[in-house]
Amino acid sequence: MSEKGFVIWFTGLSGSGKSALGDALHKEISNSGKKCERLDGDVVRNIFPETGFAKDDRNTHIKKMGFIASLLEKNGIIVVASFISPYKESRGFVRELCSRFIEVYLSTPLETCEKRDVKGLYRRAREGEIESFTGISAPFETPMFPEIVIDTTDETVDQSLERIMQYLKERGFLIDESS
Amino acid sequence: MSEKGFVIWFTGLSGSGKSALGDALHKEISNSGKKCERLDGDVVRNIFPETGFAKDDRNTHIKKMGFIASLLEKNGIIVVASFISPYKESRGFVRELCSRFIEVYLSTPLETCEKRDVKGLYRRAREGEIESFTGISAPFETPMFPEIVIDTTDETVDQSLERIMQYLKERGFLIDESS
Repeated sequence: MSEKGFVIWFTGLSGSGKSALGDALHKEISNSGKKCERLDGDVVRNIFPETGFAKDDRNTHIKKMGFIASLLEKNGIIVVASFISPYKESRGFVRELCSRFIEVYLSTPLETCEKRDVKGLYRRAREGEIESFTGISAPFETPMFPEIVIDTTDETVDQSLERIMQYLKERGFLIDESS
Repeated sequence: MSEKGFVIWFTGLSGSGKSALGDALHKEISNSGKKCERLDGDVVRNIFPETGFAKDDRNTHIKKMGFIASLLEKNGIIVVASFISPYKESRGFVRELCSRFIEVYLSTPLETCEKRDVKGLYRRAREGEIESFTGISAPFETPMFPEIVIDTTDETVDQSLERIMQYLKERGFLIDESS
């Protein structure tokens, strides 16, 4: 029997919690012995540097990431992807490309993300050092029909992870072998 | 038991027979029930248009394709890739990235490729319509240590395919279930 892959895609502002949650989910699924691949800006940056922050450039980048995710998925791999992916167009493109696609919208508000400013990017964007920064000087188009919405302002990684795992089990994406 | 993936990479001039042979091999392996993915210019062009034909652009493109191949390979997928991939640098990069890498050098001479000129590209390159065309106005760096060399001038696709399959079975890449 061939296992079924799926793609779980985290979208949201910088600092909204995508990477931490993606890492935790990837670890959880991998530890259960399933084939799970991680796609994240930090993972792909060397080979796929973003070539620009204009809308077209960003859409093109996301489409490439989606293509890779869909290739893995159709070979039975679970893909945990996290990218700001601010535009509906490319998120929709990726959803179409994949067979089983779960969009997780990190709805953590801008104020929270900016207050955290883990990488100091918001400060630099406010000072005009970074152009077209999502949330500050470039739009983030809110997902209309995400499968899961998570605001990490007051929710811990463990709590969010539990909610996602529950969703994946209830909908049959992951078989709960303990039940 | 997790099946082991590998990457078989066809390199050679335009018209040397890479795509036909890659297609045939992909079909043969897929028909045996194994997970096998095809990476080829025609497959990826929509999502990964080559952005230029300068050495750096071409190397960057090949590195991306190699990254995708290695991701699939480490998840147990067999990858059949065919790209002109004229430069040693990026072919070497891809070889390093992959665990089990088989380079198939299509050594079909330029004269044969140009005589075939299936897509009319050589004519256009000779007339200066296409810049930096491998073999005409851009170099093809001959592989120094390819695992398999194939000249399709007088060898049919079936004959070449048989030789490749023999190699893959003898070296344990494919288990010959008939023996």
